[in-house]
Amino acid sequence: MEMERNNRVVVDEENKDVGVGGSKKVNYADLFLRFTALILSLAAALIIGLDKQTKIVAVNVVSTLPPLYVPVTAKFHYLSAFTYFVVANALACSYGAVSLILKLANRGSNKSCLTKFTTIFDIIMLAVLASANGAAGAVGVLGLEGNDHVHWNKVCNIFGKFCNLVLVSLGFSLLGSLAFVFLVMLAVVKNH
Amino acid sequence: MEMERNNRVVVDEENKDVGVGGSKKVNYADLFLRFTALILSLAAALIIGLDKQTKIVAVNVVSTLPPLYVPVTAKFHYLSAFTYFVVANALACSYGAVSLILKLANRGSNKSCLTKFTTIFDIIMLAVLASANGAAGAVGVLGLEGNDHVHWNKVCNIFGKFCNLVLVSLGFSLLGSLAFVFLVMLAVVKNH
Repeated sequence: MEMERNNRVVVDEENKDVGVGGSKKVNYADLFLRFTALILSLAAALIIGLDKQTKIVAVNVVSTLPPLYVPVTAKFHYLSAFTYFVVANALACSYGAVSLILKLANRGSNKSCLTKFTTIFDIIMLAVLASANGAAGAVGVLGLEGNDHVHWNKVCNIFGKFCNLVLVSLGFSLLGSLAFVFLVMLAVVKNH
Repeated sequence: MEMERNNRVVVDEENKDVGVGGSKKVNYADLFLRFTALILSLAAALIIGLDKQTKIVAVNVVSTLPPLYVPVTAKFHYLSAFTYFVVANALACSYGAVSLILKLANRGSNKSCLTKFTTIFDIIMLAVLASANGAAGAVGVLGLEGNDHVHWNKVCNIFGKFCNLVLVSLGFSLLGSLAFVFLVMLAVVKNH
């Protein structure tokens, strides 16, 4: 009977430690990283989503006649990799907002189930965002440098402004995926 | 004095629980997933690394003369995205082997430090592998379908065998990154 009472004291003390000290500390870093990820992926999606450049290009239809001047436009949805990039960042931003609201609503309580749930989705978001960064990066390199082996010409010499904004957007998205990396690492380090 | 003795009993019982019940169960699933990731990334790196196709292509140098027949070869290192893909998979395979050996060597003990360390590297490996899959996938789609907007012609109609093996390699790599996703999820679920 004496032992049972003492055990309860030990368990209660442990719960108190986690509830007041550990979990509150985790929450603040977690909330900050989640908000950062949200803002960065929103910026990435918006920058490339609104990116558009029109150029007048000379086209030789018949070699004996002077060239025709045709307006050509660059938009993200002309390349499937950029479409995937925008969708992935929009998804990461939406998920960031939803998870932030959930975490804020349950800030006081120490719900292990919510932490588990959000961390699992953080991992999925990280994988999706990283693959989108890889896809956009690969197409970006081709646009910047072209490839002689497959006869794909570079296009960034024509659409310089468009390419620069893609680069800025990619930078934001990379930082956003880094925020998700730190979110998952935080969950692992704090709970082992 | 009585209470102190009882506390020790409680602590010992908890350690015993984690050491015998919890951690051993985690270890077997962890070891299996780690081995799977190793094999899959090794297969992905080898398939695309050894992939090579040579075709005789007709090239019109002067329009009035008959075409020249030139042998053209497709190899992974002609495209930077495929080089990154091979390096990332080789890295994932090497890391998989090292972490598997470390985990096997420390199978009996319950080293929280090693679990933390490997999980952090699992997260980094997942991000690298996912971005490599994205890069190779984006270039693969361009090779398969081409893109009219930037005048990049498809090449898989010429190098069909090469493209098919890239697809197989990409499949293995995707499954490999999925193994890393499950590894991180396992660490999160078991330790919360």
